[in-house]
Amino acid sequence: MCGIARTPEPPYYAVIFASQRTEGDNGYGKMADKMVELASQQKGFLGVESARDEGLGITVSYWDSLEAIRDWKEHAIHKIAQEKGKTEWYQNFSLRVCKVE
Amino acid sequence: MCGIARTPEPPYYAVIFASQRTEGDNGYGKMADKMVELASQQKGFLGVESARDEGLGITVSYWDSLEAIRDWKEHAIHKIAQEKGKTEWYQNFSLRVCKVE
Repeated sequence: MCGIARTPEPPYYAVIFASQRTEGDNGYGKMADKMVELASQQKGFLGVESARDEGLGITVSYWDSLEAIRDWKEHAIHKIAQEKGKTEWYQNFSLRVCKVE
Repeated sequence: MCGIARTPEPPYYAVIFASQRTEGDNGYGKMADKMVELASQQKGFLGVESARDEGLGITVSYWDSLEAIRDWKEHAIHKIAQEKGKTEWYQNFSLRVCKVE
C-alpha cells in the first residue's frame, strides 16, 4: 500500500473517499491499516492510493466492478469501521463512485 | 481550495491525479497554487480536492463535461506546468479520467 496503484486498462471503477478527521487518533490509524489489508483481499480489488495532510485525506480505491464495491461496502468488519468513522473519526466525508474511462 | 468539494448531483466527471514528487520545491508550490486558481476559472470546473503526504499526492478535480477537461488540458499555461511536471517535479504520476455515477 504505497505509491501509485498499478491498475489495468480501463474500464474499471474508482471509489473516491475524501475526509476531514476529528482531533486525536482514537484507534483510527490501526483501523485504517486494517481496512486497506482487508480491502486488498476482496474479490475485484485492483489497488488503492492514499494521501493525508492537515486539511484533508483522500483515499482512492480501484475495483473491477460495481458488484465488488457493493460487496466491500457490506463487509462486516468494514461496516463497523464505517460506523466508527461517522460517529468518531470524521468531521466530514464524501464518497464518490465512478467509472474510469 | 480547501476541504471537501461541494459538487452537484451526478453525473459529472473527475480527474484523479496521483503523483510522487522529486526532492526540493523548484517552484512547484507556487505553480500548484496558480494551477488551482486557473482551473477554478475554467468553464465547467466544479471543484477540487487535494492532499499530500511523504509518500504521495492526490488531487481530484471535478468537471461538468469531458469537453471541459479537454479544454483545461490544452490551456496554454497549464501545458507549461505539465511539461515542468514531467521533467522536474514528479518522479511518477498517473492521471485517470472518470465519470461519477
